[in-house]
Amino acid sequence: MNVLVLNAGSSSLKYQLINVETHEVLAKGICERVGSAEAFHKHGIDENEVVIDTPMPDHNAAMALVLEALTSGPTKAIDSLDDIDAVGHRVVQGGKYFDRSVLIDDDVVAKIDELAELAPLHNKAALMGIEACREQMPGKPMVAVFDTSFFQTIPPKAYMYPLPYELYEKHAIRKYGAHGTSHRYIAERAAAFMDEPLEDLKLITCHLGNGCSISAIDHGVAVDTSMGLTPLDGLMMGTRCGAIDPAIVPFIMEKENLTAAEVNDLMNKKSGLLGISGISNDLRSVRQASEEGDERAQLAYDMYSNSAKKYIGQYIAVMGGVDAIVLTAGVGENCDKMRRMIFAGLQPLGIKIDLEKNRAGLRGEREISTDDSEVRIVIIPTDEEYMIARDTYQLVKEGTLEITELV
Amino acid sequence: MNVLVLNAGSSSLKYQLINVETHEVLAKGICERVGSAEAFHKHGIDENEVVIDTPMPDHNAAMALVLEALTSGPTKAIDSLDDIDAVGHRVVQGGKYFDRSVLIDDDVVAKIDELAELAPLHNKAALMGIEACREQMPGKPMVAVFDTSFFQTIPPKAYMYPLPYELYEKHAIRKYGAHGTSHRYIAERAAAFMDEPLEDLKLITCHLGNGCSISAIDHGVAVDTSMGLTPLDGLMMGTRCGAIDPAIVPFIMEKENLTAAEVNDLMNKKSGLLGISGISNDLRSVRQASEEGDERAQLAYDMYSNSAKKYIGQYIAVMGGVDAIVLTAGVGENCDKMRRMIFAGLQPLGIKIDLEKNRAGLRGEREISTDDSEVRIVIIPTDEEYMIARDTYQLVKEGTLEITELV
Repeated sequence: MNVLVLNAGSSSLKYQLINVETHEVLAKGICERVGSAEAFHKHGIDENEVVIDTPMPDHNAAMALVLEALTSGPTKAIDSLDDIDAVGHRVVQGGKYFDRSVLIDDDVVAKIDELAELAPLHNKAALMGIEACREQMPGKPMVAVFDTSFFQTIPPKAYMYPLPYELYEKHAIRKYGAHGTSHRYIAERAAAFMDEPLEDLKLITCHLGNGCSISAIDHGVAVDTSMGLTPLDGLMMGTRCGAIDPAIVPFIMEKENLTAAEVNDLMNKKSGLLGISGISNDLRSVRQASEEGDERAQLAYDMYSNSAKKYIGQYIAVMGGVDAIVLTAGVGENCDKMRRMIFAGLQPLGIKIDLEKNRAGLRGEREISTDDSEVRIVIIPTDEEYMIARDTYQLVKEGTLEITELV
Repeated sequence: MNVLVLNAGSSSLKYQLINVETHEVLAKGICERVGSAEAFHKHGIDENEVVIDTPMPDHNAAMALVLEALTSGPTKAIDSLDDIDAVGHRVVQGGKYFDRSVLIDDDVVAKIDELAELAPLHNKAALMGIEACREQMPGKPMVAVFDTSFFQTIPPKAYMYPLPYELYEKHAIRKYGAHGTSHRYIAERAAAFMDEPLEDLKLITCHLGNGCSISAIDHGVAVDTSMGLTPLDGLMMGTRCGAIDPAIVPFIMEKENLTAAEVNDLMNKKSGLLGISGISNDLRSVRQASEEGDERAQLAYDMYSNSAKKYIGQYIAVMGGVDAIVLTAGVGENCDKMRRMIFAGLQPLGIKIDLEKNRAGLRGEREISTDDSEVRIVIIPTDEEYMIARDTYQLVKEGTLEITELV
């Protein structure tokens, strides 16, 4: 079964066409700056990538370009739209309604729309993607896969904020989490890699990239995660500050004469690694600068690792121990130095990183803890698109979401 | 040596007269609602307490009443002001200037004034107390003891917030901590109680009351603490929310149409146990309601314990282990149920609470971990006033702050 996986942002449309049975990516690409004069469409895998500057007034137009690229010309991957069996949409906010992926119908669309309150840009974009598919592939089965649904098992003591209770009742202010599809994927894959049932394991999963989140997954069930009402909560990230003294927000507003929207922008786009280093939100650039002696880059590095270390400790306490710590995403998969710093000094907790395995420069699923480490440290490259394709496959083909083994 | 310990709030003046050598409290009391028509003065220890409604237009007038009560009438504790050898002032914010207590001179006063930017109500109040003493006891040696100075050893990776670096340079936005005098006292006392040198211990000190903070003290040196730029940061408290997704601040402002000052007020005074339970900021009332089946009271209870548990885990990771966890303040000293919940499930981390010792209802310094617990759990009633008196004694009498054994 071929599933078209769509990830619509406010001005972008990412896609992958995946054969679920073989886990093969038949085609992928992205339309960027949709709606602007600088719109372009990048299609292809690795060296076969082509970039086309082309007008895209809206997501519907972008969708048309994608479908055309998939079925014709040099980018052709399938003969016709009949070869797309179903579409899987990434949706950021599923709120309290969706604790798992669902087949899309009018009611689901209405709920995604209602939840746009909590993720204005993202949910509206997903709706544009859904509408475009309905228009251009009427009747095609579609599934919504939510970033938040994996975290609906988190108990109230962890998802409630200690604010006036009325704010929860009136505005649904609580922790929803994000990156849920990634955490779910790497938890399942880590269990398979370790050859242990997920239901027997206490896992801490760390999605460390430009966005960062860490989750506690107790016997297969998410019990806490670091992102909150919004993806600003929790860890220090590339451009986001994570959880801070909330009194700083009004303090900055007053000192810098900023509006609420401006301080929100500052915390989301000008903070984190970028804010501290003054150099970049990309850890590779920060690392280079720190190795050339830049003190603020070194500080940014230290803060990022310290932030991750603290969340790992937190979730060890929450679960009363941990069997494995799983790392993924740009930093988690690729930066040996950051991994070394995160795990430095944790030997007394039974967590021992093998420095040679850590810096071996390998790719793919692998273990970087020592043979005698009580807690295993495992790297699992994430694959949210495949997870979306698999959920879509299961709901469309089997009508259920029982977990089947990952390909 | 008799030290008068003063703790001036914006509309209050608390005091204790302490004989440092004997650790005896000769007199204590408080002037409340200073500057208002409802001002009153409460003087005395326990059953000998007297309350006098009396006009106090300002802190200077309150100071005069205190000195009069100490030296004359039925409340008399000393013959004359000559029997006060020195005065110790509690000052909330010592900023980057003060990493220890200091003898007060004009330069110190100027710096406390400059730092009022970071703690407007508190530092100004301390200055009023200092001025009143200068006026009424000219030439009396005075010492400033800062809530923040114990935390000046915290490294940059822990005291910096991942915000644009310029905000630190321009407005000194960083973690300062609070409750430092309490953490310092209970750490020293815990080491003495355990009969181990403080310099050999990894301690996590938990000040859990209406205000809450937890610190990591590694071999006698504070390496992290939960309160931040302001005492709103960190743990869930009686009326404060602690660290949250900072995006919630602009979100609430927009939804509830609040100003920056109003949302700050909401987070400081209407959140925490009070906000969630809707009943009280006092854990005793919340506990009672939860035992009578109130669900929101139970939730508040669960959240408070979960918040403390997470910080303990965090600091175990930061220090790579812990030798003892030390509890103090209203909740830490007195609520066996909360202690039980905080330590529930931590046995795999070597932390075992002895449920019988925990609920024995004793007072004073004591241990509540099992004999075979790798990590000791110790309760130390805090005594910030004594710590202020001792610092004052040392600086005035010995001219140094070398740590001498606590009486």
